[in-house]
Amino acid sequence: MRDSLIAAAFQLFLERGYEQTTVDDIVTLAGVGRRSFFRYFPSKEDVVFPDHEQCLDDMTRFLAASADSDDPMARVCGAARLVMRMYAENPTFSVQRYRLTREVAGLRAYELSVVWRYEKTLGDYLRARWSDRRDGTLRANVAAAAVVAAHNHALRHWLRSGGEGEPLEEVDRALEFVRATWSPDAPAGADAPADGDEDVVVVITRRSTPMWRVVREVESSLGES
Amino acid sequence: MRDSLIAAAFQLFLERGYEQTTVDDIVTLAGVGRRSFFRYFPSKEDVVFPDHEQCLDDMTRFLAASADSDDPMARVCGAARLVMRMYAENPTFSVQRYRLTREVAGLRAYELSVVWRYEKTLGDYLRARWSDRRDGTLRANVAAAAVVAAHNHALRHWLRSGGEGEPLEEVDRALEFVRATWSPDAPAGADAPADGDEDVVVVITRRSTPMWRVVREVESSLGES
Repeated sequence: MRDSLIAAAFQLFLERGYEQTTVDDIVTLAGVGRRSFFRYFPSKEDVVFPDHEQCLDDMTRFLAASADSDDPMARVCGAARLVMRMYAENPTFSVQRYRLTREVAGLRAYELSVVWRYEKTLGDYLRARWSDRRDGTLRANVAAAAVVAAHNHALRHWLRSGGEGEPLEEVDRALEFVRATWSPDAPAGADAPADGDEDVVVVITRRSTPMWRVVREVESSLGES
Repeated sequence: MRDSLIAAAFQLFLERGYEQTTVDDIVTLAGVGRRSFFRYFPSKEDVVFPDHEQCLDDMTRFLAASADSDDPMARVCGAARLVMRMYAENPTFSVQRYRLTREVAGLRAYELSVVWRYEKTLGDYLRARWSDRRDGTLRANVAAAAVVAAHNHALRHWLRSGGEGEPLEEVDRALEFVRATWSPDAPAGADAPADGDEDVVVVITRRSTPMWRVVREVESSLGES
Protein backbone atom coordinates (compact mmCIF):
# COMPACT_ATOMS: atom_id res chain seq x y z
CA MET A 1 0.00 0.00 0.00
CA ARG A 2 2.83 2.38 0.91
CA ASP A 3 4.56 1.69 -2.42
CA SER A 4 1.38 2.15 -4.44
CA LEU A 5 0.78 5.49 -2.72
CA ILE A 6 4.30 6.61 -3.66
CA ALA A 7 3.81 5.41 -7.24
CA ALA A 8 0.44 7.17 -7.56
CA ALA A 9 1.85 10.37 -6.05
CA PHE A 10 4.79 10.49 -8.45
CA GLN A 11 2.64 9.71 -11.46
CA LEU A 12 0.46 12.73 -10.60
CA PHE A 13 3.38 14.99 -9.66
CA LEU A 14 4.95 14.34 -13.06
CA GLU A 15 1.67 14.70 -14.98
CA ARG A 16 0.18 17.75 -13.25
CA GLY A 17 2.93 19.19 -11.14
CA TYR A 18 3.46 18.89 -7.41
CA GLU A 19 1.47 21.96 -6.32
CA GLN A 20 -1.52 20.96 -8.48
CA THR A 21 -1.75 17.51 -6.93
CA THR A 22 -3.76 17.05 -3.73
CA VAL A 23 -3.64 14.19 -1.26
CA ASP A 24 -7.20 13.40 -2.40
CA ASP A 25 -5.96 12.99 -5.98
CA ILE A 26 -3.26 10.60 -4.78
CA VAL A 27 -5.55 8.38 -2.70
CA THR A 28 -8.15 8.30 -5.48
CA LEU A 29 -5.57 7.07 -8.00
CA ALA A 30 -4.13 4.57 -5.51
CA GLY A 31 -7.66 3.39 -4.64
CA VAL A 32 -7.31 3.84 -0.87
CA GLY A 33 -8.72 6.19 1.76
CA ARG A 34 -7.19 9.43 3.05
CA ARG A 35 -6.47 7.85 6.41
CA SER A 36 -4.25 5.24 4.80
CA PHE A 37 -2.18 8.01 3.26
CA PHE A 38 -1.65 9.77 6.58
CA ARG A 39 -0.85 6.48 8.31
CA TYR A 40 2.31 6.34 6.17
CA PHE A 41 3.05 10.00 5.48
CA PRO A 42 2.53 12.94 7.83
CA SER A 43 2.21 15.32 4.85
CA LYS A 44 2.32 15.53 1.06
CA GLU A 45 5.99 16.51 1.27
CA ASP A 46 6.85 13.28 3.08
CA VAL A 47 5.68 11.12 0.17
CA VAL A 48 8.36 12.82 -1.95
CA PHE A 49 11.10 11.64 0.43
CA PRO A 50 9.72 8.32 1.64
CA ASP A 51 13.03 6.65 2.57
CA HIS A 52 14.93 9.26 4.56
CA GLU A 53 13.50 8.27 7.96
CA GLN A 54 14.62 4.68 7.41
CA CYS A 55 17.99 5.85 6.14
CA LEU A 56 18.48 8.13 9.18
CA ASP A 57 17.68 5.16 11.42
CA ASP A 58 20.14 2.97 9.52
CA MET A 59 22.81 5.66 9.81
CA THR A 60 22.23 6.08 13.55
CA ARG A 61 22.49 2.31 14.08
CA PHE A 62 25.60 2.06 11.89
CA LEU A 63 27.31 4.78 13.94
CA ALA A 64 26.16 3.32 17.26
CA ALA A 65 27.70 -0.03 16.25
CA SER A 66 31.10 1.64 15.83
CA ALA A 67 34.03 0.28 17.83
CA ASP A 68 36.51 2.56 19.59
CA SER A 69 39.16 1.22 17.24
CA ASP A 70 37.29 2.49 14.18
CA ASP A 71 38.68 5.66 12.71
CA PRO A 72 35.95 8.29 13.32
CA MET A 73 36.32 9.91 9.89
CA ALA A 74 36.22 6.58 8.06
CA ARG A 75 33.09 5.70 10.04
CA VAL A 76 31.18 8.88 9.14
CA CYS A 77 32.20 8.42 5.51
CA GLY A 78 30.78 4.90 5.68
CA ALA A 79 27.60 6.34 7.18
CA ALA A 80 27.26 8.94 4.41
CA ARG A 81 27.69 6.14 1.88
CA LEU A 82 24.43 4.61 3.17
CA VAL A 83 22.57 7.66 1.89
CA MET A 84 24.07 7.38 -1.57
CA ARG A 85 23.23 3.66 -1.59
CA MET A 86 19.59 4.53 -0.92
CA TYR A 87 19.53 6.91 -3.91
CA ALA A 88 21.43 4.45 -6.09
CA GLU A 89 18.96 1.66 -5.43
CA ASN A 90 16.36 3.39 -7.57
CA PRO A 91 17.99 5.72 -10.13
CA THR A 92 14.81 6.57 -12.06
CA PHE A 93 12.89 7.55 -8.95
CA SER A 94 15.89 9.50 -7.58
CA VAL A 95 16.28 11.50 -10.80
CA GLN A 96 12.54 12.24 -11.03
CA ARG A 97 12.53 13.46 -7.46
CA TYR A 98 15.63 15.57 -8.04
CA ARG A 99 13.93 17.37 -10.94
CA LEU A 100 10.77 17.85 -8.87
CA THR A 101 12.76 19.26 -5.96
CA ARG A 102 14.50 21.79 -8.23
CA GLU A 103 11.10 23.16 -9.21
CA VAL A 104 9.21 23.33 -5.92
CA ALA A 105 10.50 25.72 -3.24
CA GLY A 106 8.70 23.87 -0.45
CA LEU A 107 10.46 20.62 -1.37
CA ARG A 108 13.85 22.31 -1.42
CA ALA A 109 13.18 23.56 2.10
CA TYR A 110 12.16 20.05 3.16
CA GLU A 111 15.34 18.66 1.62
CA LEU A 112 17.49 21.19 3.47
CA SER A 113 15.91 20.08 6.75
CA VAL A 114 16.65 16.43 5.93
CA VAL A 115 20.26 17.26 5.04
CA TRP A 116 20.54 19.12 8.34
CA ARG A 117 19.39 15.98 10.22
CA TYR A 118 22.02 13.83 8.50
CA GLU A 119 24.67 16.41 9.33
CA LYS A 120 23.54 16.51 12.95
CA THR A 121 23.64 12.70 13.19
CA LEU A 122 27.20 12.60 11.86
CA GLY A 123 28.19 15.55 14.06
CA ASP A 124 26.77 13.93 17.22
CA TYR A 125 28.90 10.86 16.57
CA LEU A 126 32.08 12.84 15.88
CA ARG A 127 31.54 15.10 18.91
CA ALA A 128 31.32 12.02 21.14
CA ARG A 129 34.38 10.40 19.55
CA TRP A 130 36.44 13.59 19.83
CA SER A 131 35.14 14.71 23.21
CA ASP A 132 38.63 14.52 24.72
CA ARG A 133 40.14 16.86 22.12
CA ARG A 134 40.44 20.53 22.95
CA ASP A 135 39.01 21.45 19.52
CA GLY A 136 36.74 18.38 19.38
CA THR A 137 33.39 20.14 18.95
CA LEU A 138 34.61 22.55 16.29
CA ARG A 139 36.42 19.77 14.44
CA ALA A 140 33.32 17.54 14.62
CA ASN A 141 30.99 20.25 13.33
CA VAL A 142 33.30 21.19 10.47
CA ALA A 143 34.06 17.59 9.50
CA ALA A 144 30.37 16.58 9.56
CA ALA A 145 29.53 19.49 7.26
CA ALA A 146 32.43 18.56 4.97
CA VAL A 147 31.28 14.93 4.74
CA VAL A 148 27.75 16.01 3.87
CA ALA A 149 29.06 18.47 1.27
CA ALA A 150 31.26 15.81 -0.35
CA HIS A 151 28.35 13.36 -0.40
CA ASN A 152 26.02 15.94 -1.91
CA HIS A 153 28.63 16.93 -4.47
CA ALA A 154 28.75 13.36 -5.79
CA LEU A 155 24.99 12.89 -5.45
CA ARG A 156 24.13 16.07 -7.37
CA HIS A 157 26.63 15.24 -10.10
CA TRP A 158 25.09 11.81 -10.53
CA LEU A 159 21.50 13.13 -10.47
CA ARG A 160 22.28 15.90 -12.97
CA SER A 161 23.74 13.32 -15.32
CA GLY A 162 20.34 11.60 -15.25
CA GLY A 163 21.50 8.74 -13.05
CA GLU A 164 24.29 7.54 -15.36
CA GLY A 165 27.58 6.14 -14.13
CA GLU A 166 28.62 4.61 -10.83
CA PRO A 167 27.25 6.72 -7.97
CA LEU A 168 28.95 4.69 -5.25
CA GLU A 169 32.34 5.07 -6.89
CA GLU A 170 31.73 8.80 -7.28
CA VAL A 171 30.76 9.21 -3.63
CA ASP A 172 33.72 7.14 -2.48
CA ARG A 173 36.12 9.42 -4.34
CA ALA A 174 34.49 12.54 -2.89
CA LEU A 175 34.40 11.12 0.65
CA GLU A 176 38.02 10.03 0.39
CA PHE A 177 38.99 13.66 -0.18
CA VAL A 178 37.39 14.60 3.14
CA ARG A 179 38.60 11.55 5.04
CA ALA A 180 42.20 12.13 3.98
CA THR A 181 41.90 15.76 5.09
CA TRP A 182 41.21 14.98 8.74
CA SER A 183 42.21 11.36 9.21
CA PRO A 184 45.29 10.99 7.05
CA ASP A 185 46.72 8.10 9.04
CA ALA A 186 43.58 5.99 9.07
CA PRO A 187 43.03 3.21 6.56
CA ALA A 188 41.05 4.31 3.50
CA GLY A 189 37.44 3.14 3.60
CA ALA A 190 35.42 2.10 6.62
CA ASP A 191 35.36 -1.57 5.75
CA ALA A 192 38.41 -2.08 3.59
CA PRO A 193 41.68 -1.19 5.29
CA ALA A 194 44.26 -0.25 2.67
CA ASP A 195 47.74 -1.60 2.51
CA GLY A 196 49.84 0.10 5.19
CA ASP A 197 52.43 1.29 2.68
CA GLU A 198 49.84 3.36 0.90
CA ASP A 199 48.71 5.33 3.94
CA VAL A 200 49.04 9.06 3.54
CA VAL A 201 51.14 10.95 6.06
CA VAL A 202 50.43 14.61 6.70
CA VAL A 203 53.00 16.68 8.51
CA ILE A 204 52.14 20.22 9.47
CA THR A 205 55.07 22.44 10.21
CA ARG A 206 56.08 26.08 10.03
CA ARG A 207 58.35 27.62 7.45
CA SER A 208 60.82 28.54 10.14
CA THR A 209 61.21 24.92 11.27
CA PRO A 210 64.66 23.52 10.38
CA MET A 211 64.63 20.68 7.86
CA TRP A 212 66.09 18.15 10.33
CA ARG A 213 63.09 18.73 12.58
CA VAL A 214 60.64 18.23 9.67
CA VAL A 215 62.35 14.95 8.86
CA ARG A 216 62.08 13.87 12.49
CA GLU A 217 58.34 14.74 12.48
CA VAL A 218 57.77 12.69 9.34
CA GLU A 219 59.71 9.78 10.82
CA SER A 220 57.79 9.88 14.07
CA SER A 221 54.46 9.98 12.16
CA LEU A 222 55.55 6.91 10.25
CA GLY A 223 56.45 5.21 13.51
CA GLU A 224 52.95 5.73 14.93
CA SER A 225 51.31 3.10 12.79
CA MET B 1 9.58 52.91 9.46
CA ARG B 2 11.43 49.68 8.71
CA ASP B 3 13.09 49.75 12.13
CA SER B 4 9.85 50.49 13.94
CA LEU B 5 8.18 47.56 12.16
CA ILE B 6 10.99 45.27 13.29
CA ALA B 7 10.77 46.60 16.85
CA ALA B 8 6.99 46.16 16.95
CA ALA B 9 7.22 42.65 15.50
CA PHE B 10 9.78 41.50 18.05
CA GLN B 11 7.87 43.05 20.94
CA LEU B 12 4.81 41.02 19.92
CA PHE B 13 6.75 37.83 19.12
CA LEU B 14 8.25 37.91 22.61
CA GLU B 15 4.96 38.79 24.35
CA ARG B 16 2.55 36.46 22.50
CA GLY B 17 4.73 34.11 20.53
CA TYR B 18 5.55 34.15 16.83
CA GLU B 19 2.65 32.02 15.60
CA GLN B 20 0.10 34.04 17.58
CA THR B 21 1.25 37.34 16.07
CA THR B 22 -0.27 38.46 12.76
CA VAL B 23 1.02 41.06 10.34
CA ASP B 24 -2.08 43.09 11.28
CA ASP B 25 -0.98 43.06 14.94
CA ILE B 26 2.46 44.30 13.91
CA VAL B 27 1.26 47.16 11.74
CA THR B 28 -1.29 48.24 14.36
CA LEU B 29 1.39 48.46 17.05
CA ALA B 30 3.77 50.25 14.67
CA GLY B 31 0.99 52.61 13.60
CA VAL B 32 1.38 52.02 9.86
CA GLY B 33 -0.64 50.32 7.12
CA ARG B 34 -0.32 46.73 5.88
CA ARG B 35 1.11 47.91 2.57
CA SER B 36 4.04 49.55 4.36
CA PHE B 37 4.88 46.22 5.98
CA PHE B 38 4.93 44.36 2.69
CA ARG B 39 6.98 47.10 1.05
CA TYR B 40 9.82 46.13 3.37
CA PHE B 41 9.15 42.46 4.06
CA PRO B 42 7.73 39.87 1.64
CA SER B 43 6.42 37.79 4.56
CA LYS B 44 6.21 37.61 8.35
CA GLU B 45 9.29 35.35 8.35
CA ASP B 46 11.36 38.03 6.64
CA VAL B 47 10.88 40.50 9.49
CA VAL B 48 12.63 37.98 11.78
CA PHE B 49 15.75 38.05 9.59
CA PRO B 50 15.74 41.63 8.33
CA ASP B 51 19.48 41.99 7.62
CA HIS B 52 20.42 38.85 5.71
CA GLU B 53 19.64 40.25 2.24
CA GLN B 54 21.93 43.20 2.90
CA CYS B 55 24.57 40.90 4.34
CA LEU B 56 24.39 38.57 1.33
CA ASP B 57 24.84 41.61 -0.93
CA ASP B 58 27.82 42.77 1.14
CA MET B 59 29.33 39.30 0.98
CA THR B 60 28.87 39.09 -2.80
CA ARG B 61 30.50 42.50 -3.25
CA PHE B 62 33.35 41.62 -0.90
CA LEU B 63 34.09 38.45 -2.86
CA ALA B 64 33.75 40.20 -6.24
CA ALA B 65 36.33 42.76 -5.10
CA SER B 66 38.85 39.98 -4.50
CA ALA B 67 42.19 40.19 -6.32
CA ASP B 68 43.80 37.17 -7.95
CA SER B 69 46.61 37.47 -5.44
CA ASP B 70 44.21 36.99 -2.50
CA ASP B 71 44.28 33.55 -0.99
CA PRO B 72 40.84 32.07 -1.77
CA MET B 73 40.40 30.47 1.66
CA ALA B 74 41.40 33.64 3.50
CA ARG B 75 38.92 35.56 1.36
CA VAL B 76 35.94 33.29 2.10
CA CYS B 77 36.83 33.40 5.80
CA GLY B 78 36.80 37.18 5.59
CA ALA B 79 33.41 36.97 3.87
CA ALA B 80 32.00 34.70 6.59
CA ARG B 81 33.25 37.19 9.17
CA LEU B 82 30.84 39.77 7.70
CA VAL B 83 27.93 37.60 8.84
CA MET B 84 29.23 37.37 12.41
CA ARG B 85 29.80 41.13 12.41
CA MET B 86 26.13 41.65 11.51
CA TYR B 87 25.04 39.47 14.46
CA ALA B 88 27.57 41.12 16.79
CA GLU B 89 26.31 44.60 16.00
CA ASN B 90 23.14 43.95 17.97
CA PRO B 91 23.67 41.22 20.60
CA THR B 92 20.27 41.59 22.32
CA PHE B 93 18.33 41.32 19.08
CA SER B 94 20.49 38.41 17.89
CA VAL B 95 19.95 36.44 21.10
CA GLN B 96 16.18 37.09 21.09
CA ARG B 97 15.95 35.92 17.51
CA TYR B 98 18.03 32.83 18.25
CA ARG B 99 15.62 31.81 21.02
CA LEU B 100 12.64 32.48 18.77
CA THR B 101 14.15 30.43 15.97
CA ARG B 102 14.72 27.46 18.32
CA GLU B 103 10.98 27.41 19.06
CA VAL B 104 9.37 27.90 15.65
CA ALA B 105 9.87 25.18 13.02
CA GLY B 106 9.04 27.53 10.16
CA LEU B 107 11.77 29.93 11.23
CA ARG B 108 14.32 27.13 11.48
CA ALA B 109 13.46 26.17 7.91
CA TYR B 110 13.85 29.80 6.82
CA GLU B 111 17.21 29.97 8.58
CA LEU B 112 18.44 26.81 6.82
CA SER B 113 17.56 28.36 3.47
CA VAL B 114 19.52 31.51 4.37
CA VAL B 115 22.52 29.45 5.47
CA TRP B 116 22.33 27.59 2.17
CA ARG B 117 22.47 30.90 0.26
CA TYR B 118 25.59 31.98 2.15
CA GLU B 119 27.18 28.60 1.45
CA LYS B 120 26.32 28.88 -2.23
CA THR B 121 27.78 32.41 -2.43
CA LEU B 122 31.06 31.22 -0.88
CA GLY B 123 31.05 28.08 -3.05
CA ASP B 124 30.49 30.06 -6.27
CA TYR B 125 33.54 32.18 -5.47
CA LEU B 126 35.75 29.19 -4.62
CA ARG B 127 34.61 27.24 -7.70
CA ALA B 128 35.65 30.17 -9.89
CA ARG B 129 38.99 30.61 -8.11
CA TRP B 130 39.77 26.89 -8.30
CA SER B 131 38.35 26.27 -11.77
CA ASP B 132 41.76 25.17 -13.08
CA ARG B 133 42.17 22.48 -10.41
CA ARG B 134 41.17 18.95 -11.26
CA ASP B 135 39.32 18.62 -7.92
CA GLY B 136 38.31 22.30 -7.87
CA THR B 137 34.53 21.88 -7.68
CA LEU B 138 34.63 19.22 -4.98
CA ARG B 139 37.21 21.18 -3.01
CA ALA B 140 35.15 24.37 -3.33
CA ASN B 141 31.92 22.70 -2.20
CA VAL B 142 33.56 21.03 0.78
CA ALA B 143 35.52 24.13 1.82
CA ALA B 144 32.45 26.39 1.56
CA ALA B 145 30.48 24.00 3.79
CA ALA B 146 33.38 23.86 6.24
CA VAL B 147 33.61 27.66 6.45
CA VAL B 148 29.87 27.93 7.09
CA ALA B 149 30.06 25.19 9.74
CA ALA B 150 32.97 26.90 11.52
CA HIS B 151 31.14 30.23 11.43
CA ASN B 152 27.95 28.68 12.77
CA HIS B 153 29.88 26.84 15.46
CA ALA B 154 31.19 30.15 16.83
CA LEU B 155 27.88 31.94 16.28
CA ARG B 156 25.82 29.31 18.11
CA HIS B 157 28.28 29.20 20.98
CA TRP B 158 28.05 32.97 21.36
CA LEU B 159 24.24 33.04 21.06
CA ARG B 160 23.83 30.20 23.57
CA SER B 161 25.98 32.11 26.04
CA GLY B 162 23.42 34.93 25.78
CA GLY B 163 25.68 37.15 23.68
CA GLU B 164 28.58 37.29 26.17
CA GLY B 165 32.21 37.40 25.17
CA GLU B 166 33.90 38.42 21.94
CA PRO B 167 32.05 36.90 18.98
CA LEU B 168 34.52 38.16 16.39
CA GLU B 169 37.44 36.60 18.23
CA GLU B 170 35.50 33.34 18.52
CA VAL B 171 34.68 33.27 14.83
CA ASP B 172 38.26 34.12 13.88
CA ARG B 173 39.55 31.15 15.86
CA ALA B 174 36.99 28.82 14.27
CA LEU B 175 37.64 30.12 10.75
CA GLU B 176 41.39 29.85 11.24
CA PHE B 177 40.94 26.11 11.82
CA VAL B 178 39.31 25.78 8.41
CA ARG B 179 41.64 28.18 6.63
CA ALA B 180 44.72 26.36 7.87
CA THR B 181 43.20 23.06 6.71
CA TRP B 182 43.04 24.00 3.03
CA SER B 183 45.29 27.03 2.65
CA PRO B 184 48.20 26.31 4.94
CA ASP B 185 50.63 28.48 2.99
CA ALA B 186 48.46 31.58 2.90
CA PRO B 187 48.83 34.37 5.39
CA ALA B 188 46.47 34.10 8.36
CA GLY B 189 43.53 36.48 8.08
CA ALA B 190 42.18 38.15 4.97
CA ASP B 191 43.40 41.61 5.85
CA ALA B 192 46.37 40.99 8.11
CA PRO B 193 49.17 39.05 6.41
CA ALA B 194 51.21 37.18 9.01
CA ASP B 195 54.94 37.17 9.19
CA GLY B 196 56.30 34.86 6.49
CA ASP B 197 58.29 32.82 8.96
CA GLU B 198 55.15 31.78 10.75
CA ASP B 199 53.38 30.34 7.72
CA VAL B 200 52.32 26.76 8.13
CA VAL B 201 53.56 24.15 5.67
CA VAL B 202 51.62 20.95 5.20
CA VAL B 203 53.47 18.04 3.71
CA ILE B 204 51.33 15.20 2.44
CA THR B 205 53.16 12.07 1.50
CA ARG B 206 52.72 8.32 1.46
CA ARG B 207 54.34 5.97 3.91
CA SER B 208 56.20 4.32 1.07
CA THR B 209 57.82 7.58 -0.10
CA PRO B 210 61.58 7.63 0.56
CA MET B 211 62.71 10.29 2.99
CA TRP B 212 64.89 12.10 0.43
CA ARG B 213 61.78 12.66 -1.65
CA VAL B 214 59.84 14.01 1.34
CA VAL B 215 62.66 16.48 2.01
CA ARG B 216 62.60 17.59 -1.62
CA GLU B 217 58.81 18.10 -1.40
CA VAL B 218 59.17 20.23 1.71
CA GLU B 219 61.92 22.28 0.09
CA SER B 220 59.91 22.89 -3.04
CA SER B 221 56.84 23.92 -0.96
CA LEU B 222 59.00 26.43 0.86
CA GLY B 223 60.35 27.72 -2.42
CA GLU B 224 56.85 28.47 -3.77
CA SER B 225 56.26 31.48 -1.55
